Amino acid sequence: MAAIKTDHPLERLVFFSDAVFAIAITLLVIEIHPPHLEQDGADATLQALARLMPQIAGFVVSFAVIGAFWAGHHRAFSLAGRIAPGIVRWNLALLGAIAFMPFVTAFMSGNYTKAGPAAVYWGWLVVTGLLNLRVNSIATGPAMRAEGVPDAQAADIPRRSCAVILAAVTALAVSQWQPWLGPFGMATIPLWLWLLRKTAKRPAPEAV
Amino acid sequence: MAAIKTDHPLERLVFFSDAVFAIAITLLVIEIHPPHLEQDGADATLQALARLMPQIAGFVVSFAVIGAFWAGHHRAFSLAGRIAPGIVRWNLALLGAIAFMPFVTAFMSGNYTKAGPAAVYWGWLVVTGLLNLRVNSIATGPAMRAEGVPDAQAADIPRRSCAVILAAVTALAVSQWQPWLGPFGMATIPLWLWLLRKTAKRPAPEAV
Amino acid sequence: MAAIKTDHPLERLVFFSDAVFAIAITLLVIEIHPPHLEQDGADATLQALARLMPQIAGFVVSFAVIGAFWAGHHRAFSLAGRIAPGIVRWNLALLGAIAFMPFVTAFMSGNYTKAGPAAVYWGWLVVTGLLNLRVNSIATGPAMRAEGVPDAQAADIPRRSCAVILAAVTALAVSQWQPWLGPFGMATIPLWLWLLRKTAKRPAPEAV
Amino acid sequence: MAAIKTDHPLERLVFFSDAVFAIAITLLVIEIHPPHLEQDGADATLQALARLMPQIAGFVVSFAVIGAFWAGHHRAFSLAGRIAPGIVRWNLALLGAIAFMPFVTAFMSGNYTKAGPAAVYWGWLVVTGLLNLRVNSIATGPAMRAEGVPDAQAADIPRRSCAVILAAVTALAVSQWQPWLGPFGMATIPLWLWLLRKTAKRPAPEAV
Repeated sequence: MAAIKTDHPLERLVFFSDAVFAIAITLLVIEIHPPHLEQDGADATLQALARLMPQIAGFVVSFAVIGAFWAGHHRAFSLAGRIAPGIVRWNLALLGAIAFMPFVTAFMSGNYTKAGPAAVYWGWLVVTGLLNLRVNSIATGPAMRAEGVPDAQAADIPRRSCAVILAAVTALAVSQWQPWLGPFGMATIPLWLWLLRKTAKRPAPEAV
Repeated sequence: MAAIKTDHPLERLVFFSDAVFAIAITLLVIEIHPPHLEQDGADATLQALARLMPQIAGFVVSFAVIGAFWAGHHRAFSLAGRIAPGIVRWNLALLGAIAFMPFVTAFMSGNYTKAGPAAVYWGWLVVTGLLNLRVNSIATGPAMRAEGVPDAQAADIPRRSCAVILAAVTALAVSQWQPWLGPFGMATIPLWLWLLRKTAKRPAPEAV
Repeated sequence: MAAIKTDHPLERLVFFSDAVFAIAITLLVIEIHPPHLEQDGADATLQALARLMPQIAGFVVSFAVIGAFWAGHHRAFSLAGRIAPGIVRWNLALLGAIAFMPFVTAFMSGNYTKAGPAAVYWGWLVVTGLLNLRVNSIATGPAMRAEGVPDAQAADIPRRSCAVILAAVTALAVSQWQPWLGPFGMATIPLWLWLLRKTAKRPAPEAV
Repeated sequence: MAAIKTDHPLERLVFFSDAVFAIAITLLVIEIHPPHLEQDGADATLQALARLMPQIAGFVVSFAVIGAFWAGHHRAFSLAGRIAPGIVRWNLALLGAIAFMPFVTAFMSGNYTKAGPAAVYWGWLVVTGLLNLRVNSIATGPAMRAEGVPDAQAADIPRRSCAVILAAVTALAVSQWQPWLGPFGMATIPLWLWLLRKTAKRPAPEAV
């Protein structure tokens, strides 16, 4: 019968978080202003879209980033069974960082040749990653973890959060050399995760 | 007792998806800018609304399209009983395609006499349809399907997704002849569904 | 045990509707553009707010209207126990009408001295009210009503929907005489409800 | 078995409220318009961000404020077990006050040197705080409180709401002396809470 006992405050926290993630991820699109074409044809259309490439790329990158943070939140809280003091505050800080992402995205997209706004974007991602690590560590820690969750599975959650932070640091470093290369830094997440898991010398649990 | 066992990660995935669908569908309205009337009267009001017809038509068409994708998602996930590896990623890709729809809608509405933006809109719908087919096939496939769901009912879900893709291809083709005719291409969904069901030579389950 | 058996497709429909209502009601605020004050002081501030009165009044009226439709939806679906064919489609049409309200609100607020935009606003409310009546009648009708709901309680739901339609018609008529009087037409809801209940010659159930 | 009996109308009210809180809190970001940099470099980037400081500060303050109201709502409704007549109306009024916050935030941020808009912002917070007190008092009062909730725990909820109102009044007063000092007035919440608890001469329950 334990399976059907739900912890309402926990559910509501998760729900509110989901809503903020969903709104932030969907608001990204309003920064892409649709152009008015002077003439018709495939060339004119493709040129108009090409001029929007920085904005479209920003949408894709931030959608993937917020989506990844959501998936991590989803994964961590699926192991939680109750609420702990302090989680509401740290979770709100994380959601604030996520809600701010449409701004840093538009700032980077509107100045895509410059290293400064790229530093702001990827630096913000490092901050968000640190808050994410804190929230997910509390959610899978002793104060909140549901009964019956194996240690190895819970231990992998902070490892994933750390891999995201290391990838964001990589993206930040790379973007200072070539601003548009930043997103490729994020592609190092699997590499960092592999390294962290190897260092921990524990068998990695299956991913969901 | 099986009926009350809920799969929380599945519920949260569905919830997050619902929120993104709901936000994208409601954001469509912000592309319709209310005009300032120089003078009062039925004529001036109707003329002002007539000038907004491309935007209003875009709102109606995309509301119906996103609503149909949501209804399909709803139908497919009502047959699912648990989460499967890979669904989070494909579902995020589908949600990204949906979240991008306010942009392609505004691009088409703002250039409604041109074939180029129409091709972008209907082409995007084909892409969204393909992602939708992938997500709904996983959700009703062996890895996620709830116990007791009959094969015939599950088999009809991908068929509906295919009918949407074929209708979007029809709309794309028609729009290259007359850009404003595209929406009528979507009206072929029942035809394609009837053809696909007939080809499958199986009795169609009752619709919900 | 019946109390804990939940109908997931119904829950998801209600959830999606709630999200659309919530987004439409919250989006109303983005039509109120904050002014830049040339000088400080109570006078300058109050004058700046006074100039925004049509927008602020539009926000208040549409917030109350959407809130009332949500409360009615809430009341009707609390009596439903399962989903019925057709409800998804009619409900989507209602949500589309709700999602369109930020536009008609801004159109009326931006032209508050004119009868034309007021007719569009209150006419749209009549359309929304008719869709609302259809949806709530299905939700409390034999196909969806939960077991054990008394007839008298279910019969009161369409009556409330009718009172809203009659009040919107009143507001429409009044607004053609004086555009800014429209909102006061909505204040006739209790009157119409009292008349409808009296005509039905049934004891009114307690309101929630 | 009592733990799994859910009150659906209550859940839907909470859900709708969560969605409005989440949307209002996330919409705050759209008032921060990303600047276009004329040249690259740390200096130009930091200067551009410095010019946005009033907007960024407004985002942070209102995010914290709406987050705190949400946390209070969350705390109050976690003690409720059923819905009471009147709560829907008062809750809608509270949500309207929350949904209006992006406007008062942008008004204050855009005129951050002036006392008038600061008075509007902090005055609005006093109004919101009063509505919050009313809603939370009903939610934890005899009509809605769940069985088994101790009196001391329920009594602390209105005390927290009062502390928020007193802090908003403090911020309002302070802002009339120095407009930008307002947010520091909100930092007096713990002080007021301590005073109110001391006056009540009851042991304070543990916070969540």
